[in-house]
Amino acid sequence: VLADGSVLAGPSTLRKDNAGYDLRDLIIGSEGTLGVITAAVLKLFPKPRARTTAFVALGSVPDALKLLTHMQSRAGDRLTAFELVSDFCIRLVRKHYPQLPAPLAAASPQYVLLELSDTQGEGVAALAEESLGAAIEQGLALDAAIAASGAQARQLWALRENMSDAQALEGPNVKHDISIPISRIADFIDACDARLARAFPGVRMVTFGHVGDGNLHYNAAHSEGGDPAAFLARAGDINRIVHDTVAEFVGSISAEHGLGQYKRGEILRYKSAVEMELMRAVKRAIDPHGLMNPGKVL
Amino acid sequence: VLADGSVLAGPSTLRKDNAGYDLRDLIIGSEGTLGVITAAVLKLFPKPRARTTAFVALGSVPDALKLLTHMQSRAGDRLTAFELVSDFCIRLVRKHYPQLPAPLAAASPQYVLLELSDTQGEGVAALAEESLGAAIEQGLALDAAIAASGAQARQLWALRENMSDAQALEGPNVKHDISIPISRIADFIDACDARLARAFPGVRMVTFGHVGDGNLHYNAAHSEGGDPAAFLARAGDINRIVHDTVAEFVGSISAEHGLGQYKRGEILRYKSAVEMELMRAVKRAIDPHGLMNPGKVL
Repeated sequence: VLADGSVLAGPSTLRKDNAGYDLRDLIIGSEGTLGVITAAVLKLFPKPRARTTAFVALGSVPDALKLLTHMQSRAGDRLTAFELVSDFCIRLVRKHYPQLPAPLAAASPQYVLLELSDTQGEGVAALAEESLGAAIEQGLALDAAIAASGAQARQLWALRENMSDAQALEGPNVKHDISIPISRIADFIDACDARLARAFPGVRMVTFGHVGDGNLHYNAAHSEGGDPAAFLARAGDINRIVHDTVAEFVGSISAEHGLGQYKRGEILRYKSAVEMELMRAVKRAIDPHGLMNPGKVL
Repeated sequence: VLADGSVLAGPSTLRKDNAGYDLRDLIIGSEGTLGVITAAVLKLFPKPRARTTAFVALGSVPDALKLLTHMQSRAGDRLTAFELVSDFCIRLVRKHYPQLPAPLAAASPQYVLLELSDTQGEGVAALAEESLGAAIEQGLALDAAIAASGAQARQLWALRENMSDAQALEGPNVKHDISIPISRIADFIDACDARLARAFPGVRMVTFGHVGDGNLHYNAAHSEGGDPAAFLARAGDINRIVHDTVAEFVGSISAEHGLGQYKRGEILRYKSAVEMELMRAVKRAIDPHGLMNPGKVL
């Protein structure tokens, strides 16, 4: 529904349509500033017949990226999750959720929680075992636990899914929802961790994310025993370091969650004048009186 | 590059980016009317380790759609091609390319050329055999030939790939590049074939396409022994029947090839006034003097 009350027909159920401009994708992601979306079409896929979850110990973030390539080349589209989680994250979750067992006997600097799914009932468990075995043999991975049951798989996922709550229980965080070209993720984390540690001695980084999408949740918590309020008061300085480093690595300061009002000013530093003016021209053309979700995005 | 000579930075290599409007997909598909694209980013995938090609005989188009669901639920993303080809198409290709062998002993009304690919070296040939065996047992398919070698696979693909040339050798065609919601493809073909046959007795339909995408090449050739020039002179009437029927089935009159100048007027009949005005508003906002590819799209 547009600002003047007129309704753009749709949504289309077509997979291929090259008749005219792609107005659908322009309106998706405009955060209500071009119109209100009142309907959606979902494409359904057959439910996988088999699923295997594994928790893999790694020596470093670069090894996690190598493991991603290794698994993609073997499992292809069967690789349906690949979540990077640092040892600090796992310790944080287990501190606040002590009922969750440690998946592996020894601690390692990084972990990946991965999932393989298949339309075929057999093969995916063997594929996980064979692929991860080869990864350990090649020195890419240190150790791996493959869930032997649905209950075990749920416990592995609980480590990842309780991360946000564990952070909140631990204290305030300055959160960042960023994306980085996949091949540069490790260098980004090295560079940005070092800059934050220089500016905020003892800062504790809670870094996890959907590495297969280049998407990191890159959150900063105050030093052990530090003052939460004083740390939060400097959120702007923390954002500056993180977002400047994201820009240096040609990433995005909003991978999943949009700009809203919080990042509306921030984006002016990182988008070119050409892109900002193009966005404003589109906004003026479609919502000339600025009625739709004012104060958001631009 | 925009009309005023300014350059929109990019292209981005990010998979996820929700910072601001999706200008990239607005410019892709605008056929040069909003700017000139001077660079592209490609995402590379590992080459499949195994590939199996099969040619399947079917009693009808509805059976082809059932076979699509059957294969998707078994093969998932391994199903990398699913091309519908009518018996008339196969006879046309073999008339002009007599060196291509008939893949199956008996003729059937419809065929599907399908391909399974996998990152795993084994399994895909057995999967094709097992899935197509089950399809024949369930009465979905009449017969199937699975290529036993790369040379045989290339011969099966040659039947599909020489289709456009075979049509040209046979005489002029009135061509349509359309998409239809997948579940309605069979009803569309029934309805539109009947309307064309009433208006143009003896019209020969050359129908083939990427059914998994809902995309049909739906081409009309004059009757056996008919006058090609008289038939071509009525292209507008043929388009009217086909495009009106496409609109009735909530499809698109341009699945792959855009509007250009040929369908620029045609689209005015099928897009709503709201959508056309939105497209014009975007065009005026980005190219106010109408310098970019004038006379195309809108």
